Amino acid sequence: MLWYCLLCVIYLDDIKYQNPNIGINSVFTLTLKFFLLISANNPFLGDLYDRSLELAKLLEKQKKEGVTLLPFNEILYCNVGNPHLCGQKPLTFFRQVVALTEYPELLNSPNAESMFPRDVVSRSCRLLSAIVHTGAYSSTTGVKGILQNIANFIEKRDGHPSDPSTIFITDGATQSVRSILHFLISGRDDGIMTPVPQYPLYTISIKLNGGTEVFYYLNEESNWSLEITELERAYQDSVAKGVTPRALVIINPGNPTGQILDESNMKEIVLFCHKKSMILIADEVYQGSIFTDERPFISFKKVVCDLGEQVSGIELVSVHSISKGPIGECGKRGGYMELHGFSKSVIDEMVKLASFSMCPNVIGQVLIDLMVCPPVEGDESYPTYKVERDATMNSLRDHAKLLVDTLNSLEGVTCNQPMGSLYAMPRLRLPPAAIAEAKSLGREPDEHYCLQLLEEKGILVTSGNAFGQREGTYHFRSTFLPPMEKVCKGLKEFHENFMLKYK
Amino acid sequence: MLWYCLLCVIYLDDIKYQNPNIGINSVFTLTLKFFLLISANNPFLGDLYDRSLELAKLLEKQKKEGVTLLPFNEILYCNVGNPHLCGQKPLTFFRQVVALTEYPELLNSPNAESMFPRDVVSRSCRLLSAIVHTGAYSSTTGVKGILQNIANFIEKRDGHPSDPSTIFITDGATQSVRSILHFLISGRDDGIMTPVPQYPLYTISIKLNGGTEVFYYLNEESNWSLEITELERAYQDSVAKGVTPRALVIINPGNPTGQILDESNMKEIVLFCHKKSMILIADEVYQGSIFTDERPFISFKKVVCDLGEQVSGIELVSVHSISKGPIGECGKRGGYMELHGFSKSVIDEMVKLASFSMCPNVIGQVLIDLMVCPPVEGDESYPTYKVERDATMNSLRDHAKLLVDTLNSLEGVTCNQPMGSLYAMPRLRLPPAAIAEAKSLGREPDEHYCLQLLEEKGILVTSGNAFGQREGTYHFRSTFLPPMEKVCKGLKEFHENFMLKYK
Repeated sequence: MLWYCLLCVIYLDDIKYQNPNIGINSVFTLTLKFFLLISANNPFLGDLYDRSLELAKLLEKQKKEGVTLLPFNEILYCNVGNPHLCGQKPLTFFRQVVALTEYPELLNSPNAESMFPRDVVSRSCRLLSAIVHTGAYSSTTGVKGILQNIANFIEKRDGHPSDPSTIFITDGATQSVRSILHFLISGRDDGIMTPVPQYPLYTISIKLNGGTEVFYYLNEESNWSLEITELERAYQDSVAKGVTPRALVIINPGNPTGQILDESNMKEIVLFCHKKSMILIADEVYQGSIFTDERPFISFKKVVCDLGEQVSGIELVSVHSISKGPIGECGKRGGYMELHGFSKSVIDEMVKLASFSMCPNVIGQVLIDLMVCPPVEGDESYPTYKVERDATMNSLRDHAKLLVDTLNSLEGVTCNQPMGSLYAMPRLRLPPAAIAEAKSLGREPDEHYCLQLLEEKGILVTSGNAFGQREGTYHFRSTFLPPMEKVCKGLKEFHENFMLKYK
Repeated sequence: MLWYCLLCVIYLDDIKYQNPNIGINSVFTLTLKFFLLISANNPFLGDLYDRSLELAKLLEKQKKEGVTLLPFNEILYCNVGNPHLCGQKPLTFFRQVVALTEYPELLNSPNAESMFPRDVVSRSCRLLSAIVHTGAYSSTTGVKGILQNIANFIEKRDGHPSDPSTIFITDGATQSVRSILHFLISGRDDGIMTPVPQYPLYTISIKLNGGTEVFYYLNEESNWSLEITELERAYQDSVAKGVTPRALVIINPGNPTGQILDESNMKEIVLFCHKKSMILIADEVYQGSIFTDERPFISFKKVVCDLGEQVSGIELVSVHSISKGPIGECGKRGGYMELHGFSKSVIDEMVKLASFSMCPNVIGQVLIDLMVCPPVEGDESYPTYKVERDATMNSLRDHAKLLVDTLNSLEGVTCNQPMGSLYAMPRLRLPPAAIAEAKSLGREPDEHYCLQLLEEKGILVTSGNAFGQREGTYHFRSTFLPPMEKVCKGLKEFHENFMLKYK
């Protein structure tokens, strides 16, 4: 880390030298923390991603000129949870409603009745009645009618009431998380407890706001479970260093791990937060992607409400979005957060802060409405919706099984079965020679593995160091969105050769 | 201000007292600056806005129950530049393209050919070819083909090339400004020169990032012009206080003032920035709303490029969006910024920072493409597009004239004629009795005026103190989006009574 800091200082000086006059201005403000944070932690960036861009250009050339430049014909993108890019189809009902809400004049067409099912028409009319002008700014926290529908969805899911005035629609879960952390952190003494491994949005947001990450380790050996003793350990260690943990982040279903917490574990976590006066931030964006019947998704909201007086006064932030699951509309940027247990005065201040961003984008809000009120049995669109939704979920379930079975068949690789989300995170026990070679090249060993997987098979995954992992362990994260037969075949061949190469 | 700080401290303590256990956590982080910043500076909030919400509820009751509760039947919203809310129609071509891009299956309908003009179909196909999956994350800075179209638009407008790799599509101008200021400011010693009066996004963003505002005053007596001597004064004053101005913000056409700078003034400004090694941030979102032939809009990009070697090395950020002008699609959240003169290494770091927000929403990107490549003569949609665009612009021009003529006819009121934007900002010379009464109520005198205007006539404007103004002067800002005959009639009656009342 010290060596990396020195590198960054030299790099900064180098940029200043190249730009002695104008241009140096913006450089002054590139604080060291940005370099450290940005280069180290974004799984979408770095050598692996850069190389994939170069290879994509070579593939284009290969295709255009009919020459063989690479040992593969396509890149299989297993690095990001980007459903539609990997072949998942949009839900017809959703696209029809958006189209009609945007251009209701389509109903004046002679064939209007045959173009859209009646429930599409009625939903568009209902949305237009609530939104009025889809081109205008909505209220800061979202369209009133849509907020009510979100509250209804939450109540139906959990069996406990939800107040629409505690719900904020946002431009996606990323924005929800960043705004709540921006609000919570005032300096280095404010700690935010975050899991390892984790989706790095959290560490990045904590760093950008000048706070301190307080890492707690998930237990890979017991299917990425969360132990209270580990939470207590992390908590006490941070307090001893003068940092006060303000909040605990849980990602459930887990990203990158795919685990779903069981109810008793969730109760322990809630009681822990209550005892320590910490806000609980529950990232539940994968609640629509569950592949097991053994462990149904239970929301933290339900657990908190079920515990009732035992956790009186606890503050909970629950985050959801339209980006994953059978909807998969990440590009539209839509999500919400429910702030349970926060005082009205705090919520009012958060509304004020949110107001400076004007409002969440209206199309994202429309899609949220459809997510929380999808077609139901009896609706004209229901049969199509059900077929599409089930096809997506079955495909994900099959892909997950195929990938994990393949991974577990490989020498030195173990992988917990994901119960939900879109990811598998296998552990690699790499040969010492591979580790040594990686270190001689200044790379993390898992990144070294992943780079070679990309070069030889065109399979792009994300190396484990991007998510955090126990010292001396190596992993990668793969989505199971693309066609898994190709991915598994390539992975198997690559791994066998890799293990032979470094024997 | 000191009194206000004390109030905030008391308020914070009060909240803590009410929440002795859990709940107090998030309160600790409500720093004083948030209260000061948020309560003081957001023109969408505060007493005036809160009262308009209460009156809106009373109007609903009035309408529902057929009782007379208020001396008016509707609220005329002249407070926010929200075109569609105030009756401006969406552009048909834009809505057709969005609908078809979202649901291209409409082309399979028997009546497809009659539903959409051919250029709508071809544009949707072109966009789908560039975007591929409208539901997927796009690249961080936006879809490549759309970035190229933005660059082409800029080149055509200015006669100088534009590089798409220096363009960032964002979820609106607000996000562009907030991200550039976030990047530029590292502490209190970093100053950002901002105009008075100004759209308060700037002061808020500067405060939120811990920087220092360096105010320079526009000259109301000469049509809100910008004098270099005033820039120099503000610059030197800040340096004397240990603050280094890093950037100069210009809003052109002006918000809230509506002025358009002349070319020689712009050259002086650019040379000033170059001399002082400051980044120039040009907020040009109203470039599509020009009402005068006397002063055409010239971009700062053009001025910088025309000056060439004289300003070698200058860094310029130009901001535009889909929210205003004849498009008016604020709710869709789309904009872009062009970073001219920034080194590649700085732009790369900005891309990395932007990558943590994933990507700008895809529908916003589609609308940006349509904004920079609207229908042209010869296109099937052009006649309709032209009629709609001209109707909107003519209406705005007529409204602007009517409002400003009315304002200038009122006792004690003077108003510069806006050359562009959506706003007029009249100055009020209030009777001493009105000022005294306002102060006795703890209000700003212009806010006191505006509250009474709202109460008596249902006309909601924004009081001048929200934008900043010279000490001892009073203003308000009104859009000219709603039907101006009603607004002007109500304003005239109100003002005459007001002046009599406080004579």
